[in-house]
Amino acid sequence: MVSELGVGDASHKHFFGELTLGLSSSTMRIYLDNAATSWPKPDAVYAAVDRYQREIGIAAGRGGYNDAIEAQRIVEAARREIAALIGAPNPSHIIHGCNGTDSLNLAIHGTLRPGDHVVASVTDHNSVLRPLADATRLRDVTVTYVGCNGQGLIDPDDVRRAIRPETRIVIATHASNVTGAIQPLAEIAAVTKSADKLLMVDASQSAGHVDIDVTALQADLLAASGHKGLLGPAATGFLFIRDGVEKLVHPIRQGGTGFESQLDRMPDELPTRYEAGSLNGPGLAGLVEAVRYLRQRTITAVCAHEQMLVERLWNGLAALGTVRLYGPPPSPLRGPVVSFSVEGYDPQEFSAALDAARGIQARAGLHCAPRMHQALGTFDSGGLVRMSVGWATTVEEIDEVLAVATAVATA
Amino acid sequence: MVSELGVGDASHKHFFGELTLGLSSSTMRIYLDNAATSWPKPDAVYAAVDRYQREIGIAAGRGGYNDAIEAQRIVEAARREIAALIGAPNPSHIIHGCNGTDSLNLAIHGTLRPGDHVVASVTDHNSVLRPLADATRLRDVTVTYVGCNGQGLIDPDDVRRAIRPETRIVIATHASNVTGAIQPLAEIAAVTKSADKLLMVDASQSAGHVDIDVTALQADLLAASGHKGLLGPAATGFLFIRDGVEKLVHPIRQGGTGFESQLDRMPDELPTRYEAGSLNGPGLAGLVEAVRYLRQRTITAVCAHEQMLVERLWNGLAALGTVRLYGPPPSPLRGPVVSFSVEGYDPQEFSAALDAARGIQARAGLHCAPRMHQALGTFDSGGLVRMSVGWATTVEEIDEVLAVATAVATA
Repeated sequence: MVSELGVGDASHKHFFGELTLGLSSSTMRIYLDNAATSWPKPDAVYAAVDRYQREIGIAAGRGGYNDAIEAQRIVEAARREIAALIGAPNPSHIIHGCNGTDSLNLAIHGTLRPGDHVVASVTDHNSVLRPLADATRLRDVTVTYVGCNGQGLIDPDDVRRAIRPETRIVIATHASNVTGAIQPLAEIAAVTKSADKLLMVDASQSAGHVDIDVTALQADLLAASGHKGLLGPAATGFLFIRDGVEKLVHPIRQGGTGFESQLDRMPDELPTRYEAGSLNGPGLAGLVEAVRYLRQRTITAVCAHEQMLVERLWNGLAALGTVRLYGPPPSPLRGPVVSFSVEGYDPQEFSAALDAARGIQARAGLHCAPRMHQALGTFDSGGLVRMSVGWATTVEEIDEVLAVATAVATA
Repeated sequence: MVSELGVGDASHKHFFGELTLGLSSSTMRIYLDNAATSWPKPDAVYAAVDRYQREIGIAAGRGGYNDAIEAQRIVEAARREIAALIGAPNPSHIIHGCNGTDSLNLAIHGTLRPGDHVVASVTDHNSVLRPLADATRLRDVTVTYVGCNGQGLIDPDDVRRAIRPETRIVIATHASNVTGAIQPLAEIAAVTKSADKLLMVDASQSAGHVDIDVTALQADLLAASGHKGLLGPAATGFLFIRDGVEKLVHPIRQGGTGFESQLDRMPDELPTRYEAGSLNGPGLAGLVEAVRYLRQRTITAVCAHEQMLVERLWNGLAALGTVRLYGPPPSPLRGPVVSFSVEGYDPQEFSAALDAARGIQARAGLHCAPRMHQALGTFDSGGLVRMSVGWATTVEEIDEVLAVATAVATA
């Protein structure tokens, strides 16, 4: 497969007239699985990973020699870039994790205590649902799952009604990985603040796609992957912890920290308290360049580009007549995923046909969000086909996808 | 710092006459911190990471399209390479983790239950000690730390005496990251088997340096980083779980698995049961090449090279008269780390002087192993200077280190 992939598709560079960073891409496939991981990344990301590996190569925070300081500088730069992107006042409260799932597990398992209650919702991903189910089974935690409307949107009043005295955290999935619905976070935050409860945001599908301001939101915890909308390498992810909230979050992974080694517990200082073991130096070097690119280009510009593509894709699919689309209609208030069913087709079958016809890489199934599909009524029919566009997806690619989808659907 | 580093030091290629994989290295520094992370890696490792990122880029196990199968093939190849290296019969029992610490946390926290007792030792690293201390504090676990002799070696009879009816696991650090001492694992395994207890091995400092055969050992759990002796990229590590033992190991991180998404728990099947969230695709692509390189070159050959360097370094330092060396004397039964103190010098100070004089990158301090330093009597004097050689360290580098160390120590 690898050998068939070309690099340097010139049409990308043409489309992004203002783009200074180069692109490595493929003319042999149309990648529409950016909600799983973004591809391609800005070229500077690949270059930074390679340079770190070849020239620095050191475990950050693990040596006193001079080059180790360069490694540490990169790790801290990644914190600063993310903090700046999400409006966090203090970079040391950005905790590097292994991926979004790892960061969500820290937020959930680190915070919950026996007897706690959680308000979650049917829009949550298995990276939230499964840790909660585990806590329910093993640690006497109870969970209320708030429902959603036909477009996948939660009613903040439902959140308010679900809160109990023993509620420890309210979890809000910022953007659904199935419907693209962006929840009314400010209203949900107002509810949690007035009830004096912790707000935890799963931003895995919104970070890099829509503006996030943890200070304005007064979010207590916010987790995301680094390799999806943030355009960083694999094995990156972060958890933002609001100042003071760390007192409530136990470090669930313990190990070497490179200093205060005499302690038999993790040091109290952030970020070290939550960063046991060697960090992903090369990955973080890439993440620095990725977030820097996003900030230079601005989230507003990326969002506008992605929404234009979503609208084109949505309208084209709707015109087929046999396609049923889910989630909110195109608007700047949705994430860049388009999920649908096709009359007479199993989702996997339709997706496979697109791949076979033109290397269109969409994803079919439950997308690790079973409660979302139950709410949409698509659980028993094998879920949906999902196409997720990204910063580098082109209009030409969308038009080709629509032509192929039309041919397959009407065959 | 980065800009000062050259690449392609020809002396490496000269030294490894039989080496077909190229090296990227630096003439500006002498890297002796391979016990923290190995550097350089074989060139094929860098190439594989870059190729995965640019040409594949997909989240393994997260799509049904054809290229996703290529991503999955790489992830499985990494399991097969590691399984072959350590004598594991079934690659699906090699669990990919974020790093060694992450894999050790899974082994420890996943296995321990309230009321359990653990036999550990003073040779353990904080990636073992801190999870155990956490379990002691929060989960009513008790731990007995077996001592060691003056060279850092454990007596299997001490392990036997420490075992109680309620002992759940015996933990053995295969090679110490401070003394290099390689424990008599076969004898310890015989003790644990006769007592019908689980044997968990921390192979972070032995994997890639000495032969490991989990089948001959009858090890139940064995964890290691992928980026140290295994020569893989950052953010890789693994846990081997013996067939059947998975029934005793709870999956402590939960999240999306890309299939069986309808379950509210992790699927029972290995390796998926323990692999929530997106795997490090590019890192695993690099790890495949790294372990393949080691297997082709053979661990025996790497070990012989490293032991030759250790002996040269040890003897040269001993000749200074003012240096006190720790751990077993040079022999194939020790790992490639040399730790020492210098009369009249604080370890940090001596290490900094070597760096300043010639970019010699050693490490000073407690090396995340406080009990080891207490046992050696070096805890209160700031630990030791540690030099850890690797597959790519040259005789010329060792000779230069000795010349500089002599100049500094006798200044």
